[in-house]
Amino acid sequence: MLSFESDYTEGAHPNILRQLMATNMVQEPGYGFDEFSQLAKERIQKALGHPEAQIEFLTGGTQTNQVVIDAMLTQYQGVIAAETGHINVHEAGAIEATGHKVLALTAKDAKLDAQTVDQYIQTFDQDENRDHMVFPGMVYVTYPTEFGTLYSREELAALHAVCQKHSIPLYIDGARLGYGLMSAQADLKFSDLPDLCDVFYIGGTKQGALCGEAVVFCHHNEPDHFLTIVKQHGALLAKGRLLGVQFAELFKDDLYFKLSQHADKLAAKIKRGFLNKGYRLYLDSVSNQQFFIVDNQKIAELAKKVRFARWEKYDDQHSVIRFVACWATPAESVDQLLKLI
Amino acid sequence: MLSFESDYTEGAHPNILRQLMATNMVQEPGYGFDEFSQLAKERIQKALGHPEAQIEFLTGGTQTNQVVIDAMLTQYQGVIAAETGHINVHEAGAIEATGHKVLALTAKDAKLDAQTVDQYIQTFDQDENRDHMVFPGMVYVTYPTEFGTLYSREELAALHAVCQKHSIPLYIDGARLGYGLMSAQADLKFSDLPDLCDVFYIGGTKQGALCGEAVVFCHHNEPDHFLTIVKQHGALLAKGRLLGVQFAELFKDDLYFKLSQHADKLAAKIKRGFLNKGYRLYLDSVSNQQFFIVDNQKIAELAKKVRFARWEKYDDQHSVIRFVACWATPAESVDQLLKLI
Amino acid sequence: MLSFESDYTEGAHPNILRQLMATNMVQEPGYGFDEFSQLAKERIQKALGHPEAQIEFLTGGTQTNQVVIDAMLTQYQGVIAAETGHINVHEAGAIEATGHKVLALTAKDAKLDAQTVDQYIQTFDQDENRDHMVFPGMVYVTYPTEFGTLYSREELAALHAVCQKHSIPLYIDGARLGYGLMSAQADLKFSDLPDLCDVFYIGGTKQGALCGEAVVFCHHNEPDHFLTIVKQHGALLAKGRLLGVQFAELFKDDLYFKLSQHADKLAAKIKRGFLNKGYRLYLDSVSNQQFFIVDNQKIAELAKKVRFARWEKYDDQHSVIRFVACWATPAESVDQLLKLI
Amino acid sequence: MLSFESDYTEGAHPNILRQLMATNMVQEPGYGFDEFSQLAKERIQKALGHPEAQIEFLTGGTQTNQVVIDAMLTQYQGVIAAETGHINVHEAGAIEATGHKVLALTAKDAKLDAQTVDQYIQTFDQDENRDHMVFPGMVYVTYPTEFGTLYSREELAALHAVCQKHSIPLYIDGARLGYGLMSAQADLKFSDLPDLCDVFYIGGTKQGALCGEAVVFCHHNEPDHFLTIVKQHGALLAKGRLLGVQFAELFKDDLYFKLSQHADKLAAKIKRGFLNKGYRLYLDSVSNQQFFIVDNQKIAELAKKVRFARWEKYDDQHSVIRFVACWATPAESVDQLLKLI
Repeated sequence: MLSFESDYTEGAHPNILRQLMATNMVQEPGYGFDEFSQLAKERIQKALGHPEAQIEFLTGGTQTNQVVIDAMLTQYQGVIAAETGHINVHEAGAIEATGHKVLALTAKDAKLDAQTVDQYIQTFDQDENRDHMVFPGMVYVTYPTEFGTLYSREELAALHAVCQKHSIPLYIDGARLGYGLMSAQADLKFSDLPDLCDVFYIGGTKQGALCGEAVVFCHHNEPDHFLTIVKQHGALLAKGRLLGVQFAELFKDDLYFKLSQHADKLAAKIKRGFLNKGYRLYLDSVSNQQFFIVDNQKIAELAKKVRFARWEKYDDQHSVIRFVACWATPAESVDQLLKLI
Repeated sequence: MLSFESDYTEGAHPNILRQLMATNMVQEPGYGFDEFSQLAKERIQKALGHPEAQIEFLTGGTQTNQVVIDAMLTQYQGVIAAETGHINVHEAGAIEATGHKVLALTAKDAKLDAQTVDQYIQTFDQDENRDHMVFPGMVYVTYPTEFGTLYSREELAALHAVCQKHSIPLYIDGARLGYGLMSAQADLKFSDLPDLCDVFYIGGTKQGALCGEAVVFCHHNEPDHFLTIVKQHGALLAKGRLLGVQFAELFKDDLYFKLSQHADKLAAKIKRGFLNKGYRLYLDSVSNQQFFIVDNQKIAELAKKVRFARWEKYDDQHSVIRFVACWATPAESVDQLLKLI
Repeated sequence: MLSFESDYTEGAHPNILRQLMATNMVQEPGYGFDEFSQLAKERIQKALGHPEAQIEFLTGGTQTNQVVIDAMLTQYQGVIAAETGHINVHEAGAIEATGHKVLALTAKDAKLDAQTVDQYIQTFDQDENRDHMVFPGMVYVTYPTEFGTLYSREELAALHAVCQKHSIPLYIDGARLGYGLMSAQADLKFSDLPDLCDVFYIGGTKQGALCGEAVVFCHHNEPDHFLTIVKQHGALLAKGRLLGVQFAELFKDDLYFKLSQHADKLAAKIKRGFLNKGYRLYLDSVSNQQFFIVDNQKIAELAKKVRFARWEKYDDQHSVIRFVACWATPAESVDQLLKLI
Repeated sequence: MLSFESDYTEGAHPNILRQLMATNMVQEPGYGFDEFSQLAKERIQKALGHPEAQIEFLTGGTQTNQVVIDAMLTQYQGVIAAETGHINVHEAGAIEATGHKVLALTAKDAKLDAQTVDQYIQTFDQDENRDHMVFPGMVYVTYPTEFGTLYSREELAALHAVCQKHSIPLYIDGARLGYGLMSAQADLKFSDLPDLCDVFYIGGTKQGALCGEAVVFCHHNEPDHFLTIVKQHGALLAKGRLLGVQFAELFKDDLYFKLSQHADKLAAKIKRGFLNKGYRLYLDSVSNQQFFIVDNQKIAELAKKVRFARWEKYDDQHSVIRFVACWATPAESVDQLLKLI
C-alpha cells in the first residue's frame, strides 16, 4: 500500500545504520561525551559557518521543546506561539507541565506576524494589571510551520528584531528544518539562522534519523548546567553516541539537505498533480507536507489504496487531508499516487 | 477623594470585625477544625438548602482556583475557560504553574456558550491526534463574569448538561457571586447552584470579608485528602477561625446578600447616570462593575477627583474605564460621582 | 479546659483587632500597596536598623517557605535542610510540589551543623556524578527549631560563612522568631539577622497575628518580579492591608518582642515545673515549646484536664508530649498546669 | 585501553543492528503502533508467562522512573525508596520535578527492608500530623541495586505483602534486570516478577540496546491514557519501531538473558580475582558491577591502563572504585585486567 502518512514511517537513512554498525564496538563515554557527538557538533558548526555555536542533542521534538523552553524561561514567564503552533496544540500540554503558559496569538498561514507580537508585548507592558499576568519570555515559531508554510527572511528578521527590542529570545522549532530550507520558495539558508534567531533545533526524527534533534544555541546563550536540566527532565540519553553518530552522518556531505530536497521536489510534484486535477489547496504549503480539501467520498475511495492523514473536517461534504513526502519516499510512489487521484 | 477603584479597597463589614473581637480569646483547634468554621459551613448549607454540601475555606481567589482545579483535574487534563476568564488572563499563570493548560475558547459578553463547549469537546473526541492533545477535564465559568455579565439559568443548565454529557465537572468561580445573584437581571438564586454545577466558590474578599473564599463541592465530590492538597499548595491557614468567623457572619441574617444588593443598586444607578449623560457602555454589565467608553480628555479630568480603573484602550481618543460599587460604597459617593461626569 | 496545644489557638492580640477596626473604612489600594503595609515595612526596617531591607508580606508559613524557596532556587537546585526541618516533614511536600528536592541532612538537637553542610557541598562538588545530582542551592534553617532549640550566633555565623563560600543563600524560617530571640538563652538580637543570613521571615501567625509572615530580603536580593511570583503561587492577598495593619501593630512599641518574652517566661516556668516533678526532657528546648517524656498512663490522666500535643512514641511505656506557651497564655494557666502534674 | 567504566560504553548487540537494517524501509505507524513493538510485547509476555501483562516502551531509565512514578502517584503522594536509590541520588531531582517527594529510608546493602517500610507507613498512619505530611504512595526498589546486591525472593515477597497491606504498588526499577536475574545468587526468575510486584521495567540501555526500557504493568494497572501522559512528559518516541525492534530482538531466543549471564560470569571472575589479590570488597555485589576499596596510589597506577569509575572516598588513603562487566565485555579483557592488579 502506498503511504504518505507522515515523515516518520521508515527507519533511518542507510548511511546512518551503516555508521552505527561501523562504530558499534568502539568504547565511548556516555551522556554525549563521545567522539561521535563531538564530530557531529563540529560538522554542524561548520555547516553553519559558526564555530562557536553551542550544540546539544536530544531525542525527540516535544522533549526538545519542553527542555529548551523550560530551561530558557524564568518561572513567571510564558512563551508566545501561533495558535496553531505545535506546542500549543499537539504536545499534550508538555510546556504547561513544566509550569509555563503558552501565550497563543492569532496566526495567518500558521505564521506569527512581527507586528502582532510587538503589539501584544507593548500592550502587556502598558497594562495596569501587568504584574498579575504571565510575562512574555520567548517567541516560538516553527520553520516550516505545521502547515508547510515558510517565513521569509524578512519576516524572521522582523520577529527577531521585535524579540531583541523586548530582550527575549526567538526560538525556532525546526522539526522539519531541512524540508523548509530546501523548499524552492525558501529565501534563507542554514547558515543564516544564527543571525535570525537565538536558539533553534535541527530536526532529525522526521528527516532521516531514527530519533534525535540537535539544539543550537546561537549566541553563547546555552543555559548553565544544561546537562543537569536535561537529566532532570528525563531527557538525557545514556548512549549519546546514538545521537552523535546520526547527526555526524546527516551533516556529512550535505546528506541532510539532499534528503530534504528530494522530499520537497516530490511534494511539489504532488501539489501540482492535485492542482492539475482540480483539487483545492487548504493552504499554500511550499514544503514537504501538502494539504488538500477533498470530497469525503473521494477520500474513502483513496483510503483503500493509499495511506494519508485526515487532518480536519472542512465542511459537511469535504475534509482536509494531508500527504507527506519525506527523505524515504520513492519517486515512483508519487507517480502511482497521481494516477489514483 | 472618591473611589470606585475596586471592591477590595476597604476592610471588612463591621459585624465581621465585631465577631472577630467577640470570639478572639476562645481557644480553638487550627486548620479549619474550629467551631466557627463548623458554624459557617452549617449556615451556608442551610442557605443552600443542601445539608450535604461539602464546604472548605480558602484565603483568596487565585489560590482557590489553583487548588480546586489542580485537585480535580487528572494530570493529562486541562480546563476549558472563556478567553477573557480570570484564570486565563489575570492570575499570572497560576493554573499552568500546577501543570495544567487553560483551554481558552472564544467568549461572547465574557461568557462561554454551551454549544461552543460541546463542539470543542466533540471535535477533540473525534480528532485522530487526540492522544497528543490536552484532554478537556473541566469547564470553568465566572458568575458574574469579569465584565459584570451574567449567565441565565438556562445558559448555565445547558453548560452543565454538556459537562455531564462528557463526564467532566462544571466549576463556577464566584469571586463576586453575591453581586451576581442579587442583580436585578439574575434569574437564579443561591440555592439553585448545586443543581447547576459541580463545584463553585463563594467569594468573600470582594464581598465584605478581610479575606476568604468558601468552596462548595455539590455532589459528594470533594477530592480525597483535600486538606493535604490544600497544605501542599501552601494554602492551608493555621487559624482557620479567621475564615470561619467571617463566613459565619456573612451568612447570618442574609448579610452576604444584603451587602451584595446594596452594591448592585448603586452600580445600576451609576450605569443609568452615565447613560443619561450620553456615555457609551463597553458591555452591558448588570452587576457591581460598570465599564464605560470615555474620551481620554474626560478621563484625565475625572481622575483628578475620583479613583477608577483604566481597563483598556478603546481607540485613539477613547479608553474603557471601570467603576465598581461594593458592600462599602456610600450612596452619597455615587451621587457625587454623577455630579462630576 | 486548659490548653497548651499550640501557639495558634487564639485569635490575635487585641491591639491588632482594634487597629483593624480603626482603619477599616480607609480606602486603600490592594496587593500590598496600602499605607499600612508601608508603615509596617518602615517599622520593621527600623527595628532591624536596616533601612534598605526589602520586606514582603505573605499569609502563612508553608506558603512563605514555598514561595521564597521556589523564587530563589534555580530549577536544577534543591534546598539543604535538617532532616527534622519543617519543610522536610510537615509541609505536605509543598517544596517538591514546585519541583525542588529537599536535601535532608542529619541534625543534632534539630540543628544543622556548619561543618556537615560544608562537607556535603564539598563532596557534591567533587563527585564525578555531580551533573546527575540535585545541586545544593540554599540552606534552610529554623530559628528556633521545631524542637525549641536555638542556634548560637556563632553557629549561624558559621553556617552563613559556609553559604557564602559556596555562593548560596542562607534562609531562616522564623515562624516563631520572636520566641527564639527573646529566649533567655538567645545570644543574638533581631538586628543581627541581616548579618547572619540572606533572607528570613518573621512569623506572625504563631506570634499574635490572625495570619501573616513578613519576608525580609537582607541584601537587595529580592527576586525580580516577586509580586508576580507570589501571585503565580496563589499567595497574593488582595487586601494586603490585613497583613500591613497587623505587622505595623506588632512592631509598634516592641509589642512583638514583649509578647514573645511573655511566652518564653511561661515556657521556662513549665520546664522548671516538670523538671522539679522529675519528668524528663525529650530535648533541652529553650523557647516557647517544651517536650517531655511522660508515662502513657499519666498522659491519659492529664489529657482529661489539659490539651497538649502528642508528639511521638518514645518507648512502649512512654510518649513525647508537647506543651506550648504563647503570647495569649495566661500566667494562671501555667500555675494550674503545674498543679496537675 | 581496557574499559570497565560502565555498561553503556558500546553500541548495541549486533543482532539488534542487523534487525534495524533488515526492517528499515518497512513503513510503520508511529508512536508504538508498529508491528515490531507488537512483536516485542508478545515475546516479553511469553517470556513472562503472562499474556495479559501491559507493556510500554520508553527511551531511558530516568525518563521511565519519572513517567511511571508520576503517572501512578496521586498528587499528595510520595515514593518510598532506599536512601541509596537511583531516584534519590542520581536522577537530578527528576521525581521532584514532577511534584513528588522521594521518601528516603535507611537501607542495608542498598536494599529496603520490608519491616522498615511497614514501620514507616504505620507510623505515618498513626501520626497526629499525618494530613500535613507526604503520603507514602508507592515503594520503589532496584533489582539489582545500585551496588549490585539482590533482593531474595522472600525479601521481595515481604515488601510486596507490605505494599498490598497498605494498598500501594511496588515498583521495581530493572535498569539492569537481566544482570540481576542471571546472577548465580539470584533465587527468582523473570516469570516470577508479576507475582512479586505491581510494575517493573526491563532495562535495555545497559543490557545491549542502543536505548530503551520496557515497562510492564503486571495487574491490568496501566494508568488511563498512559500514551498521553508519556507525551506530556516529552517521552513519546515518534519512531516507536526503534524500541520495538530492539526488544523484539533481545527477547528472541533468550538473547537478553544470555547476554546478562555472560556479563555476570565475567563480573564474578573479576570479583574472585580482586579477592585473591587481597583487595577488599566495598559491598558484596553479586551481579555485573563490582566495588572495591583500593589504595589511592594503586588507583592512580591502574588508571593509566584501564578505565573504571571512582565511586567515593573511603578514607584518607583509600577510595571505592567500580568495575562493570556487560554484554559486550570480552573475556580477554577481564584476563588482562586481572594481570594488572
